[in-house]
Amino acid sequence: MLIAKIGEFGLIERIRNKIRTDASVVQGTGDDCAVINFNRSQYLLLTCDMLVEGVDFTSREKPYLIGRKALAVSISDIAACAGLPRYALVSLGLPPKAKVEFVDKLHQGIRDLARRYKVNLVGGDFSRADKLTLDVSMVGTVKKKNLVLRSGARRGDIIFASGTFGGSLRGKHLKFTPRLKEAHWLVRNFKVNSMIDVSDGLAQDLGQILKASRVGAAIYERLIPFSKEARSLDDALYSGEDFELLFTLSAPEAKRLLRKKEKLFKPIGNIVSADYGLRLIDKNSREKIIKPRGFRHF
Amino acid sequence: MLIAKIGEFGLIERIRNKIRTDASVVQGTGDDCAVINFNRSQYLLLTCDMLVEGVDFTSREKPYLIGRKALAVSISDIAACAGLPRYALVSLGLPPKAKVEFVDKLHQGIRDLARRYKVNLVGGDFSRADKLTLDVSMVGTVKKKNLVLRSGARRGDIIFASGTFGGSLRGKHLKFTPRLKEAHWLVRNFKVNSMIDVSDGLAQDLGQILKASRVGAAIYERLIPFSKEARSLDDALYSGEDFELLFTLSAPEAKRLLRKKEKLFKPIGNIVSADYGLRLIDKNSREKIIKPRGFRHF
Repeated sequence: MLIAKIGEFGLIERIRNKIRTDASVVQGTGDDCAVINFNRSQYLLLTCDMLVEGVDFTSREKPYLIGRKALAVSISDIAACAGLPRYALVSLGLPPKAKVEFVDKLHQGIRDLARRYKVNLVGGDFSRADKLTLDVSMVGTVKKKNLVLRSGARRGDIIFASGTFGGSLRGKHLKFTPRLKEAHWLVRNFKVNSMIDVSDGLAQDLGQILKASRVGAAIYERLIPFSKEARSLDDALYSGEDFELLFTLSAPEAKRLLRKKEKLFKPIGNIVSADYGLRLIDKNSREKIIKPRGFRHF
Repeated sequence: MLIAKIGEFGLIERIRNKIRTDASVVQGTGDDCAVINFNRSQYLLLTCDMLVEGVDFTSREKPYLIGRKALAVSISDIAACAGLPRYALVSLGLPPKAKVEFVDKLHQGIRDLARRYKVNLVGGDFSRADKLTLDVSMVGTVKKKNLVLRSGARRGDIIFASGTFGGSLRGKHLKFTPRLKEAHWLVRNFKVNSMIDVSDGLAQDLGQILKASRVGAAIYERLIPFSKEARSLDDALYSGEDFELLFTLSAPEAKRLLRKKEKLFKPIGNIVSADYGLRLIDKNSREKIIKPRGFRHF
């Protein structure tokens, strides 16, 4: 049976069910980061992301932006758990025909973003590869009381999103700014029930919150913040890599957030019971069941 | 300029010199693991290794052994720092034509070794890729007093190696047992001045100790423990992946180790001043300068 048949998420489920971890693992596979119980006040957050030429970027992209993206993707995962990115390892698979100048620029993109986010680049690995491949693994920390997972959404929660959606295909995926500051501001000021970063599309990643929290959701077409690059509703719902935050707050907390008039955070819907599934309320107030689909590798 | 011109180590140096890290980083790029000052009694160890089809294994190898190797390589790095491997992330780049059964076996190889070494598999990433690519990143811990780096070799030290050398090409690289138990036994019973795992060849990895410690070494042909698969002295000195431990002890500590009659650990030479470089004393007691060469990706 080809992996395309069961798909990326089928494969993840299949593997996940066979893994046993010890009591120090608060959250293994299945969230933006793994969460490790490490000392009294903090958890350790671990995440890794592999980028491959022809999948996550084309061979025509600027190497500086490729390097930058490789690091930004992992910082975004740490942000989604409300953590602080601290250490990164970078594995680089390089074609032997690659130029030193290319690697220099690639690494400058990595380094510049690392400096900006105070991430220590502490090591890595080089390998020969046919196509440029980057795998960044990152270690972060989070105060125990600040940790936010995908699994904490409750019926009655209001769903919020940062920024706009649908701009990924037009280059946002290479230039986005991980929402670290924003995530920290949120957990400092509010009780955030669940959070995820949108790396596979709004519908699919909201689906991850729903699945982990065993709830359903209604989102409102007229509330979805469109990127000016989005050509259609589908772009906003299903195009992969906006790297915005998607999170839920209880109704009273949501009210408090709305009162702050922070334009970045927009309510887009609400959490309901699981049997409702995921539905879009269109501009004519008609309900439409939507699939939590988005970017999949196979 | 092509990367092949400056080579893997030229590239590492080039990048390394541009990286700045904060005070929590005890050792960044340049050892088997990165070492992080994390709490009063322990350091955190971080390492990652990328394996690519056609470079680190052929497409004909058993997937179980490929998975096993991917994890074993990182455990070996943690062992070389005398640490305890604790958590692993596995990024898998898979061709869409891969079969589910193939991934199942690959992951069983990873899981079985993880269980044996009590490593928690806490996450990872899937990506599409033309060629099978595995990147394992691992987090370990080490008691501060037990940490061993490459940089601690001193003039007068005796150089020891575990196991035998030159068996890599005949399959050892897929089936080796990381020397974790042995490394722990060593640091529990001896003051180990420096250590590395031999992943790029005996000569090259001894060269890493010499460079990091700013010393030279003489090794004795008649003392080098040949694998029965080694066809020549060159196999033992330069073939890549024996994954044995190479370490140095002061003369009194060496004497104590030799008295224990542990057959696994063999003295192969001694540390001298840097200007001596690296020389092999052949069977006729002739000195020969050797290059610290071995496996290089480019």
